[in-house]
Amino acid sequence: MRVEDFRTVTWRDGRPVILDQSRLPHEESYLVLEDVEQVAEAIGTLRVRGAPAIGIAAAYGAALAAFLSGGDRQAVLDACDLLASTRPTAVNLFWALQRSRALALDEGIGAEKLAARLLQEAEAIAAEQDAADRRMGELGAELLPSSCRIITHCNAGGLATLSFGTALGVVKAAHSRGKVELVWVDETRPLLQGARLTAWELERAGIPYKVICDSMAASVLARGMADAAITGADRVAANGDTANKIGTYPLAVLAARHGVPFYVAAPLSTLDLTLENGSAIPIEERSPDEVRAWGGVAATPPGAPAWNPAFDVTPAELITAIITEVGVARPPYGESLPRLAGKVPQGSS
Amino acid sequence: MRVEDFRTVTWRDGRPVILDQSRLPHEESYLVLEDVEQVAEAIGTLRVRGAPAIGIAAAYGAALAAFLSGGDRQAVLDACDLLASTRPTAVNLFWALQRSRALALDEGIGAEKLAARLLQEAEAIAAEQDAADRRMGELGAELLPSSCRIITHCNAGGLATLSFGTALGVVKAAHSRGKVELVWVDETRPLLQGARLTAWELERAGIPYKVICDSMAASVLARGMADAAITGADRVAANGDTANKIGTYPLAVLAARHGVPFYVAAPLSTLDLTLENGSAIPIEERSPDEVRAWGGVAATPPGAPAWNPAFDVTPAELITAIITEVGVARPPYGESLPRLAGKVPQGSS
Repeated sequence: MRVEDFRTVTWRDGRPVILDQSRLPHEESYLVLEDVEQVAEAIGTLRVRGAPAIGIAAAYGAALAAFLSGGDRQAVLDACDLLASTRPTAVNLFWALQRSRALALDEGIGAEKLAARLLQEAEAIAAEQDAADRRMGELGAELLPSSCRIITHCNAGGLATLSFGTALGVVKAAHSRGKVELVWVDETRPLLQGARLTAWELERAGIPYKVICDSMAASVLARGMADAAITGADRVAANGDTANKIGTYPLAVLAARHGVPFYVAAPLSTLDLTLENGSAIPIEERSPDEVRAWGGVAATPPGAPAWNPAFDVTPAELITAIITEVGVARPPYGESLPRLAGKVPQGSS
Repeated sequence: MRVEDFRTVTWRDGRPVILDQSRLPHEESYLVLEDVEQVAEAIGTLRVRGAPAIGIAAAYGAALAAFLSGGDRQAVLDACDLLASTRPTAVNLFWALQRSRALALDEGIGAEKLAARLLQEAEAIAAEQDAADRRMGELGAELLPSSCRIITHCNAGGLATLSFGTALGVVKAAHSRGKVELVWVDETRPLLQGARLTAWELERAGIPYKVICDSMAASVLARGMADAAITGADRVAANGDTANKIGTYPLAVLAARHGVPFYVAAPLSTLDLTLENGSAIPIEERSPDEVRAWGGVAATPPGAPAWNPAFDVTPAELITAIITEVGVARPPYGESLPRLAGKVPQGSS
């Protein structure tokens, strides 16, 4: 079985179709999104999630707005505003929508061509991401030792991009070279993207894994049971500080304490060099209901107060290297990241 | 409402009766244990849990064996063996059963008196624990600043002892002095003793709290939103290394990183000075089913491989102080703990 035998977002019969991740791993179902509101809802409720994937979905959403409005520029700009309001942390969303917006504002593109041009752009963003994933996979796999036991958090797999993945793309590339002994999968509360999605994706790819609760990662590291940690990113600041799914920061602290390298796999679209450091990254807070319950089953007393930050920031000092599609950045990131960001993509694209 | 208006284990009509913690917070139900097998089952499935509470329940179980067998010494010793086999990490279980065993082996106690004597011993263990809790509460409350925001993991409350609690006993004592602004409650996967039990207990006691996923504790600490961390313990080695619920160790690492004092509340019965350090503490591994599901709802693909260590070990270097009923131990624990352990209990007992 090919590991990339799914696609998070597809364009079919004039509509974006998403693999509904809220139903995984129990059901592999696809959802046709009929209007921009449905695209926004799918992003907001994490039916499609992962920084690169929500950028791709948003770009298809902008194209949909153009098709439904017969190429109305304002309708497309309004759609971009709505889509941008769904989730604040991942910068890929704003980066992708910026590309859609620029086309909507380009008077050189006639109204009759706008929808097709926006669709072409969405397809390009998806294809670029896929090429970036595969290039990151190759570059990242080089960094891992043989018989590697890897720990990861959340899902930075094909489900978070188009098909291959960032952090899991590295794992897949390393696995195809015979280098992967085991992947430790943090379940990733509250929405269990690790237990639900990463496990599903690794199972499908035939890569050996074990699921643990997030609080068990420290024991895996303390007992010398992992050789590398690797995660994705939702936004990387100019100094290398990285926002990613809540629970990434403590994993990085523990990896550093136990001398395990901590890698971040992030396409250039995830870099936000306008931010000096991580303190400026907006951190989404989601409904306390997600903490109070899972799968509709309440854990706490009814209405118990709860706090639900969806991301945390890992300071650059804890990150061994940042793997991008144009090369591997090493500290000091304030120098290496701008250098890479200025570089023309090479290789597989 | 008095905060101590429940008792984890009671003796009624010749049987131990437990508050069934597996049904909290949704249902407050009491379970009559009819034989020693039922006591062992209740401990093994965490209907009664928490290091001191399982010691108390086991002592009542030994008394039950004597009553049911008409004072048969071998039946009591067999019961002690069965009860000792339920959970390996908490030393209070073995400590309490040692007291029962000594009575069963004491030829000076006639068979007709053995059951009553074992029951008296169980009542004494429960009463001593309650006095120890209240004394730890007073000593621990002294350590906390005013307007304190406290973070805790798992449940080290009255539900883990008899009625008042170790770590939560400190919180309750501090709250009655008006010192507690907020308690951050780690939900404590996989069995959610924080979300289910600590939230229930704090709600009942009228102490302000917020539930978070375990992975969010790092953000609470990094943002300066907690002034102290406090947990219970399942076993403390001679050098101060402390085994406690899985997830305690990463909390201690993060507390140290952010300059937040990390306290352990542990009665002397939790000390195991026969062990030089934490590496010798046996760590219970429980069924992967607990990781694969959440509240009975499957999270992973069916049969996904998982690992489920129930405890971790926090090295002494990360522990600011260990609060016992006879005083507060400070580093180096190799000196302070044996000194305290040799001390006659003072005050409230």
